[in-house]
Amino acid sequence: MKISQLGGEAALINLIRDKFGAVTNADLALAIGDDAALVRCGESYMIVTTDLLVEKTHFRMDINDAYLLGWKAVAVNISDVAAMGGTPTYSFVSIGLPDIEVSLVEKIYEGMYDVSNAFGSVIAGGDTVASECGIVINVTQLGTVEMDRAARRSGAKAGDAIIVTNTLGDSLAGLQLLLKFGMDEARRAGGSLVEKHLKPEPRVWEARAAVETGKVHSMMDLSDGLSADLAKLCEASGVGAKVFADKLPISEELHIASARMDADPVSLVAGGGEDYELLLTSAKKDAEKVINAIKSTGSNASVIGEIVDEKSVVLVSSDGVEQQMPDGWKHF
Amino acid sequence: MKISQLGGEAALINLIRDKFGAVTNADLALAIGDDAALVRCGESYMIVTTDLLVEKTHFRMDINDAYLLGWKAVAVNISDVAAMGGTPTYSFVSIGLPDIEVSLVEKIYEGMYDVSNAFGSVIAGGDTVASECGIVINVTQLGTVEMDRAARRSGAKAGDAIIVTNTLGDSLAGLQLLLKFGMDEARRAGGSLVEKHLKPEPRVWEARAAVETGKVHSMMDLSDGLSADLAKLCEASGVGAKVFADKLPISEELHIASARMDADPVSLVAGGGEDYELLLTSAKKDAEKVINAIKSTGSNASVIGEIVDEKSVVLVSSDGVEQQMPDGWKHF
Repeated sequence: MKISQLGGEAALINLIRDKFGAVTNADLALAIGDDAALVRCGESYMIVTTDLLVEKTHFRMDINDAYLLGWKAVAVNISDVAAMGGTPTYSFVSIGLPDIEVSLVEKIYEGMYDVSNAFGSVIAGGDTVASECGIVINVTQLGTVEMDRAARRSGAKAGDAIIVTNTLGDSLAGLQLLLKFGMDEARRAGGSLVEKHLKPEPRVWEARAAVETGKVHSMMDLSDGLSADLAKLCEASGVGAKVFADKLPISEELHIASARMDADPVSLVAGGGEDYELLLTSAKKDAEKVINAIKSTGSNASVIGEIVDEKSVVLVSSDGVEQQMPDGWKHF
Repeated sequence: MKISQLGGEAALINLIRDKFGAVTNADLALAIGDDAALVRCGESYMIVTTDLLVEKTHFRMDINDAYLLGWKAVAVNISDVAAMGGTPTYSFVSIGLPDIEVSLVEKIYEGMYDVSNAFGSVIAGGDTVASECGIVINVTQLGTVEMDRAARRSGAKAGDAIIVTNTLGDSLAGLQLLLKFGMDEARRAGGSLVEKHLKPEPRVWEARAAVETGKVHSMMDLSDGLSADLAKLCEASGVGAKVFADKLPISEELHIASARMDADPVSLVAGGGEDYELLLTSAKKDAEKVINAIKSTGSNASVIGEIVDEKSVVLVSSDGVEQQMPDGWKHF
């Protein structure tokens, strides 16, 4: 049976986890299945997360540039550290390279260096090898978090408010613009959307501010789209969710670009990937406190729905009609 | 300028280290340039190392099998932990996969699982993605070592005895047999050499026994061949080395295979890669103690030369003629 016949990436990950997954213990508080693993390190947790980017699957050099590729490769890992409520510390970069221009490699590293620097992290090691088939980048990012501040996917409770940071769907719209119009024209048509796709800002300070309230029940970052990611959070917590369509934070640029591309902004939000915003829950009574903490960092945050007992994720339209959330994003 | 024009992998790594390398501090005791990084973790060091394997560059599925590929991908990382004198703890596996048979993926994970298990380590997380161009595996391995036991490349002193474990050159001879004859015939012609190439045993217990004597001045694992790796150790320590050709530990199988392939066993030892044996130094007076400690684990160890002040690495033939060590292994 091929991977695609098994059900793709998600099915394969489940199979691997069931057969080879680690048993958690006092030193390994959290393994396969969250944004990152938590390894005990003295009196706190070391956060460990890793992401592999393969040319053609995850990026195309014709609609990207080397600096932004480097930025994003590290940024998405820092985002996973943020999703645990932690602070990034060190990254380890493995890179497989065809025999390309050295200046391109330097640009990739500049991007990685700049985003590390911006969030207080350091490139501390790695591996550099030849690749006959395109650029391959793996980043392993370490971070640190106090034991009582570590945020997991599994803590959502029925009645919780569902909160997201800033606006959603922008990254997917940016990608669609890039695919349709190429780099230059896409930037003219929707610069902020393209920027969001190519140069995501990990929400480190927002996540820290949120967990420091002590009121966050669950948290993750939005890498595969609201629909897929909220389903994962609900599954990990053994709950369901209702999302209100008219509460979804949609940017003005997304409305404009949606009209131009004849797309539905709500499906871009639900199905979209790579926003790298935070998805979190807290008791309803604490939602304002959490939101204010996030706002103190300069970002926005809003309630988009609520956690419910019934184990499904539904989208409620403005006229009260419930439907299943539109689908997410699949690699295989 | 292309990477190959710059001088390949090693030149590129130097450039990256100079431009983007981390400054070590109290929490990051050792960064880019050794077998692994050392990150302070409570009262001990966490060891972090990462290796990227790309199909066609590092392995070919026609002369390999999935289980052994998985074994080796993790084993070489555990070997880096051993090289620091540490104990492996957790590994994080990123894997990029074309749409291949699920059973092949399971075999890869079985190999990874078995070698982790054999050395007390656990697969604690990772990333699984699609790849349009062959299998890509990145393993980040964590380990732990007491601060006063951590072995570096930089501690070799003039007058030190140079010690290696077991025999050298076997892995390269195994690879040559595989390339020349294919899997089945190669295994008939030199089973132990092929085994050494495809299923290396990281020298965890040997390294622990050695550092526990308190007498090891410097240590690394032999992944790029004695010539290249000894040059790195000497450069890191600011010293040179004399290696005595008639002291090189050469297996009976290597002698036989060398004759069959019309190759010089000493150049297989010097230029060969991927032995994953240990290269270490200690004061001459302590060499026997270190060797006996290693032997207590069931492996062999022997003195092959000495560290000298003059900064070159020379091979001394049995009749006393000195020559530069033959070249190592290059990827680009």
